[in-house]
Amino acid sequence: MKSFIEVSPESHFPIQNLPYGIFSTADNATHRIGVAIGNLILDLSVISNLFNGPLLKTQQQVFQQTTLNRLMSLGNEAWKEARSTLQTLLSESNSALRDDQKLRSKAFVPQSSAAMHLPADIGDYTDFYSSIEHATNVGTMFRGKDNALMPNWKYLPVGYHGRASSVVVSGTPIHRPNGQTRPKDDEPPVFGPCRLMDFELEMAFFVGPGNTMGEPINIKDAHKHIFGMKWEYVPLGPFLAKNMGTTISPWVVTMEALAPFTVDNYVQDPQPFPYLKHEDKYTYDIKLEVGIKADGSDHVGTVCQSNFRNMYWTMKQQLAHHTITGCNTRPGDLLASGTISGPTEDSYGSMLELSWRGSKTVDIGNGATRKFLQDGDEVVITGYCRGDDFRVGFGQCTGKVLPALSLK
Amino acid sequence: MKSFIEVSPESHFPIQNLPYGIFSTADNATHRIGVAIGNLILDLSVISNLFNGPLLKTQQQVFQQTTLNRLMSLGNEAWKEARSTLQTLLSESNSALRDDQKLRSKAFVPQSSAAMHLPADIGDYTDFYSSIEHATNVGTMFRGKDNALMPNWKYLPVGYHGRASSVVVSGTPIHRPNGQTRPKDDEPPVFGPCRLMDFELEMAFFVGPGNTMGEPINIKDAHKHIFGMKWEYVPLGPFLAKNMGTTISPWVVTMEALAPFTVDNYVQDPQPFPYLKHEDKYTYDIKLEVGIKADGSDHVGTVCQSNFRNMYWTMKQQLAHHTITGCNTRPGDLLASGTISGPTEDSYGSMLELSWRGSKTVDIGNGATRKFLQDGDEVVITGYCRGDDFRVGFGQCTGKVLPALSLK
Repeated sequence: MKSFIEVSPESHFPIQNLPYGIFSTADNATHRIGVAIGNLILDLSVISNLFNGPLLKTQQQVFQQTTLNRLMSLGNEAWKEARSTLQTLLSESNSALRDDQKLRSKAFVPQSSAAMHLPADIGDYTDFYSSIEHATNVGTMFRGKDNALMPNWKYLPVGYHGRASSVVVSGTPIHRPNGQTRPKDDEPPVFGPCRLMDFELEMAFFVGPGNTMGEPINIKDAHKHIFGMKWEYVPLGPFLAKNMGTTISPWVVTMEALAPFTVDNYVQDPQPFPYLKHEDKYTYDIKLEVGIKADGSDHVGTVCQSNFRNMYWTMKQQLAHHTITGCNTRPGDLLASGTISGPTEDSYGSMLELSWRGSKTVDIGNGATRKFLQDGDEVVITGYCRGDDFRVGFGQCTGKVLPALSLK
Repeated sequence: MKSFIEVSPESHFPIQNLPYGIFSTADNATHRIGVAIGNLILDLSVISNLFNGPLLKTQQQVFQQTTLNRLMSLGNEAWKEARSTLQTLLSESNSALRDDQKLRSKAFVPQSSAAMHLPADIGDYTDFYSSIEHATNVGTMFRGKDNALMPNWKYLPVGYHGRASSVVVSGTPIHRPNGQTRPKDDEPPVFGPCRLMDFELEMAFFVGPGNTMGEPINIKDAHKHIFGMKWEYVPLGPFLAKNMGTTISPWVVTMEALAPFTVDNYVQDPQPFPYLKHEDKYTYDIKLEVGIKADGSDHVGTVCQSNFRNMYWTMKQQLAHHTITGCNTRPGDLLASGTISGPTEDSYGSMLELSWRGSKTVDIGNGATRKFLQDGDEVVITGYCRGDDFRVGFGQCTGKVLPALSLK
């Protein structure tokens, strides 16, 4: 499959991908839905009338929205139809868009001239803790090797409610937080800027239609409620709340685009309860990389190479578990994986693990090292699935650490 | 101060109160902003043109909204002006509304014929844990008397992010959740309906204008961001997530209405950090009562009498702490107190404490007893401040426990 739009082999955005995002431009401040193709964005608000399949022809207004929430609410059959329409329109063999220069000039925008925004109104944000390597590493550091995994860890996907208001799009800088820490166990706590600021390499998915309160999502149907995935990175200071910021990538890659990259699920022992059991593959081979760019440098020093396939619990299991109490979910809810660490020391997804609680330094190139993040550091996350002659990627997710503010 | 609307001395809604809520009626399904007065609701969408003070005359559209979020965003000077306008309009000495029968017939709706809805779009919901009696009781049960309070408890108001999607208005029934429990420590967990379902007596406040990410709210300004208070009750099963439902009262009582009922703040030792310090009274004498009505019974058996004055941390301290990391807050965010227990055994705010982890029974009248909640039980929370010859109350907050659903 090829598009009439030129796409380099290293691009994250070939016709096999077609991720959704929300953008605006200097000459049009309205937030619009766009699809990334090569270095361009296809503005769906301009071509909403071309979605003429049986499900979408009466729903074209979802492509005129300022967020993806309404598209997410339509469900996975509508999402498949949208993808099929987009692949047809962008195919090199289809003339409708290819040969209409007037329409093309209106419908395509260079990514370099667009500002990206949050893709959805996020009602609730949940953060899981589903990487067994990460949970084992953190548990070993704080409770010792023999009690590394809590007793319930292998029975259910542990998670917590996160802060939705402070989820921001890639590129938004984040101030080092102030707060209380207790450097010496036998002395009172002290107040000041967080000293051990960290990142966490995560991925996340958006909920589609969701469920009514009191009616859990059956694991057999969970895939129908998973719209797509994105990067996520949460800077945090250990022991402080994680509420000061969560950065997400602007592009949401659909589950259809990721489908060719499934691999075997993690072998779970003990067997999960029936409400968490599924046989189909829902684990994905997504190569992940984290780099740190020091202030004033133009070198991004790689500190972590991991893979989403390292996850113990699948997204279907996370969603089924989340709703088992009767908890409702809504279109645009964001569910994150937790830090994704691999089995090797260079695949750990946080500075806490990479520096092993500050006991060793991590090289970031040009002679510089880190144990935790310094003011001015920019964290850069990239990642993609590798096809035969193309990549399905997520673009970049970046965030810069600004100094703590003094209190007014 | 008296209104031309008749208000009985026991009513929660005299002219001294004037709480805000969102309602609809059988003949008009539109959600509108109303103010409770006696047994009536004053429909602000009908009289929005009468808000002619300097701040609100250009903002009358906030009274035409379907939620309180925009009114909340205006800040405390505008809220004071709105209260002043409403007290003037409803006063027995003011003829504008009193003598306009046509307007009165449109503007007043009996509470008995109105359906109440959530007062705001709740972006984020935070639950604190700020009652020292409650924290001590729970800590004693699970960690023993000597380690009852965690070391950080007196240094900062402990809290966690809650689930915003499942906050529902009073009267909404809640199914008993399914989930995993581990009845025997040396055996694997089991799956099924939660056995120990509980309530938690809490109060909560709504955030007004809120703050930008990275710019904490100074404790000196915190009161400008606290719109009003309401009841809250969270049914929960200990050890299971609390995400299946939080019930809140329909009426939001403003801080202006509560101002006459301030009492001395809890004497805090150790002294809090400067960012948490304030001298003005921000603790309120609000009498709280929880009753349980068994299925088929018409008797509400009182199980708890507590008071909001028992709180260790104030709402100003909770808000200043919440934002100290730079976390942003938005109009309509809901911040809850945590379970409010008093010093005596009949003032504990949860069945966990009242039955002391199930070690004794609690009388609910008519010969019936409880350790935790049973299917069909309805929890009824009421409470008010007592003035000389009036009450400023919150109305009722009720929720019925329905049986667990079997999974589809």
